[in-house]
Amino acid sequence: MPLSMLFSPILTALTNRAIPSSLLATVEAENAPIVLSSVLLSLVVIYLASKVGSELAQRFDLPPVLGELLAGVVVGVSALHLIIFPEGDLTATDSLIMTAVQLLNHLTPDNLVNVFASQSEVISVLAEIGVIVLLFEIGLESDLKQLKAVGTQAVVVACVGVAVPFGAGTLGLMSIFHVPAIAAIFAGAALTATSIGITSKVLSEMGQLKSKEGQIIVGAAIIDDVLGIIVLAVVASLAKTGSVDVVNVGYLIVSATAFLIGSILLGQLFNSSFITIASKLKTRGNIVIPALVFAFFMAFIGNAIHLEAILGAFAAGLVLEESDAREELDELIKPIADLLVPIFFVTVGARADLSVLNPAVADNRAALLIAIFLVVVAIVGKVVTGWFVFGIPNINRLAIGIGMVPRGEVGLVFAAIGSTSGVLSKPLEVSIIIMVILTTFLAPPLLRIVFGKPTESNITVDSVE
Amino acid sequence: MPLSMLFSPILTALTNRAIPSSLLATVEAENAPIVLSSVLLSLVVIYLASKVGSELAQRFDLPPVLGELLAGVVVGVSALHLIIFPEGDLTATDSLIMTAVQLLNHLTPDNLVNVFASQSEVISVLAEIGVIVLLFEIGLESDLKQLKAVGTQAVVVACVGVAVPFGAGTLGLMSIFHVPAIAAIFAGAALTATSIGITSKVLSEMGQLKSKEGQIIVGAAIIDDVLGIIVLAVVASLAKTGSVDVVNVGYLIVSATAFLIGSILLGQLFNSSFITIASKLKTRGNIVIPALVFAFFMAFIGNAIHLEAILGAFAAGLVLEESDAREELDELIKPIADLLVPIFFVTVGARADLSVLNPAVADNRAALLIAIFLVVVAIVGKVVTGWFVFGIPNINRLAIGIGMVPRGEVGLVFAAIGSTSGVLSKPLEVSIIIMVILTTFLAPPLLRIVFGKPTESNITVDSVE
Repeated sequence: MPLSMLFSPILTALTNRAIPSSLLATVEAENAPIVLSSVLLSLVVIYLASKVGSELAQRFDLPPVLGELLAGVVVGVSALHLIIFPEGDLTATDSLIMTAVQLLNHLTPDNLVNVFASQSEVISVLAEIGVIVLLFEIGLESDLKQLKAVGTQAVVVACVGVAVPFGAGTLGLMSIFHVPAIAAIFAGAALTATSIGITSKVLSEMGQLKSKEGQIIVGAAIIDDVLGIIVLAVVASLAKTGSVDVVNVGYLIVSATAFLIGSILLGQLFNSSFITIASKLKTRGNIVIPALVFAFFMAFIGNAIHLEAILGAFAAGLVLEESDAREELDELIKPIADLLVPIFFVTVGARADLSVLNPAVADNRAALLIAIFLVVVAIVGKVVTGWFVFGIPNINRLAIGIGMVPRGEVGLVFAAIGSTSGVLSKPLEVSIIIMVILTTFLAPPLLRIVFGKPTESNITVDSVE
Repeated sequence: MPLSMLFSPILTALTNRAIPSSLLATVEAENAPIVLSSVLLSLVVIYLASKVGSELAQRFDLPPVLGELLAGVVVGVSALHLIIFPEGDLTATDSLIMTAVQLLNHLTPDNLVNVFASQSEVISVLAEIGVIVLLFEIGLESDLKQLKAVGTQAVVVACVGVAVPFGAGTLGLMSIFHVPAIAAIFAGAALTATSIGITSKVLSEMGQLKSKEGQIIVGAAIIDDVLGIIVLAVVASLAKTGSVDVVNVGYLIVSATAFLIGSILLGQLFNSSFITIASKLKTRGNIVIPALVFAFFMAFIGNAIHLEAILGAFAAGLVLEESDAREELDELIKPIADLLVPIFFVTVGARADLSVLNPAVADNRAALLIAIFLVVVAIVGKVVTGWFVFGIPNINRLAIGIGMVPRGEVGLVFAAIGSTSGVLSKPLEVSIIIMVILTTFLAPPLLRIVFGKPTESNITVDSVE
């Protein structure tokens, strides 16, 4: 059992003391203990940041997740440089954790680069598994029947929330800022998709996930996520060839629809056998492991057919929500989510480079005006969606619209691809990044305002979050 | 927030369909979704294997962890090639999971190598965190007072269990097999250290962790782990320079002692404030996150001072064992352990290359005779330790000795370093590997036999494992 981990402390001890490292050069995984050290140190920093952030936010009556995002900004690339990733111009020597590890282990420059890459890879994957577990938990806490009941509303909200910001953004950029058509379409498209992770976490924190508004928002955000992928495929092929790749777009639409419906049908089949399986298992993890196998497998499928892993995880949770073991599963998933989800939010904050807000840089000044326009369109374009909800009396229309505001992920993908393919100018790219950052950080406090003060039971630790 | 994860599905979709990958070459983390896919698929395989293995073992009245190890062998390098690591001659094309991922994503050979390396790195670190959480849990379930009470016994057992196999192994190899002195000392040293992970897991599964025997075994195994690191440093410097690096050995002895005592003293300080902190936190994870920060930080320190991460985690658990929040913490750590610990045991099995047992290979035939000798010395040399326990009437002496039998990790480090430094011949190296594999797989069923059949309450899911 040549476990790389087990080689580790001994090899380190020897490498640094008894035997010159050349002798051990052929022993694999020489860096393994150092990678482990850096991952452990990163996790300690991430958890401390997440707890300080969420507790402070709680004290100021803000959503805890906003605290985690901001704490991530503090420990990340914008400030302390503790949690950074090898992106852009950043290298191992920029990372304070890597500097500490380097001091402890006297790594060669090559090894330092390798350790930094490995550590970043591990933390990134843990963050990805974190958002997968979050969406699985959100699925578990959602109500499939309720979601079906508001399904039409969710589709309407999603479609309006894609069409309005896209149209207003594109036309506005062309007419007000005289941006070329293709670039304007690209930037307009970046305004479309909603970040489901942030919205659903805030809803869950406020105990609003099961409300009509909450379920419409979650349903619409899921549909938005799929629409965003399709819009991106359309716009990217337009930018590249001047025409739309109909086959690819058709594939995405069909596979997304088939996946969501298929997974729910398949899941209901699995669901009935889930209790049987779990009750027959006699060793530890009898409930949580089958559930996670299902969630991870669905996430894998979602990823493998070029949709998103989180869609699969959400579908898995939604299906198990109807299971008899749900309450027990809920309790078991909580500590796992507490372990993994903060890694996601802190790293989201850590990766947000707030230096794009610095007006001393010329590109940023040019970007700020466009960014203000984009932020207004991004917010107004989503807020109006609430008024397209029909047939449900006494619904909080403003809350639905605000719930769709955070952009997060997909907007940044647009900025990155647009910039790489040469379609977007630097100021336009920066303005998209500013728009994504602002909508992401504004949405949580706005949501809390429009939903009203949560009841005491919802903000304590025991709440169904 | 340019999350690599969020780039992923979209970039994949585009890379494979709309836009040639060259266009996206500068976009970082292009492989991120594929790494995520491979990690998810690996986890699904690991969890399925661990559940099938542990449930089958349970049915045959064997320790579940043995089932997990054997299931790991089945999915690993010895059989199905699902979970393998880039060690020895193994490459990405040997991995069935990589082959599946390759089919789905049409990776270039270079990218395939990178994805395989990243996936292996992530799974390895998860396994390492798994054994850290396991030892934290073992620490939580141990009894500091009990451990102090049997402390002298544990030291005696550990020292005898190092001295006897080392002496008998070295002398036997020299006199019976005419092995050169340095090589014999190296092989003898490989017989010394006990694998704490496997033994403590079996004890926990049998509900014997808190018994006098259990606490002596755990205490002695911890001391053994430290002694093993020291013996390795001595032997390695002997093999290298012909003399012993007294400074290094002194450093290891002092740092290990200082670490274990210091962490318990420091921990008792932290412990009193732990409840205060946990009770003041109002957001999710108020108990589990501070506890894990402590455990990971101690593991980091253990690793950083060139001891082992698991020592720090054990010390952290031991200290919090005395805390008032212990029962709640116990419940919260369980699902986290269920999530991470199987990754450790399945990968231990997966990395065990049973082809060394194949007598068709000439080196293996030569090795088998030596291996039989080493296995006998390895078992007898540890079993005798039980009879050195004094002053405790009615103690199960055989159980204590058997509990020290599994070698696991450190023995393999000896084999790897000995082979790399040219001290060990190929047959001798192979025989050490065989000895490690056999003692590891034999110990769990033997332990169950010598402890007698567990009571019904201990083998059900609800047991304090």
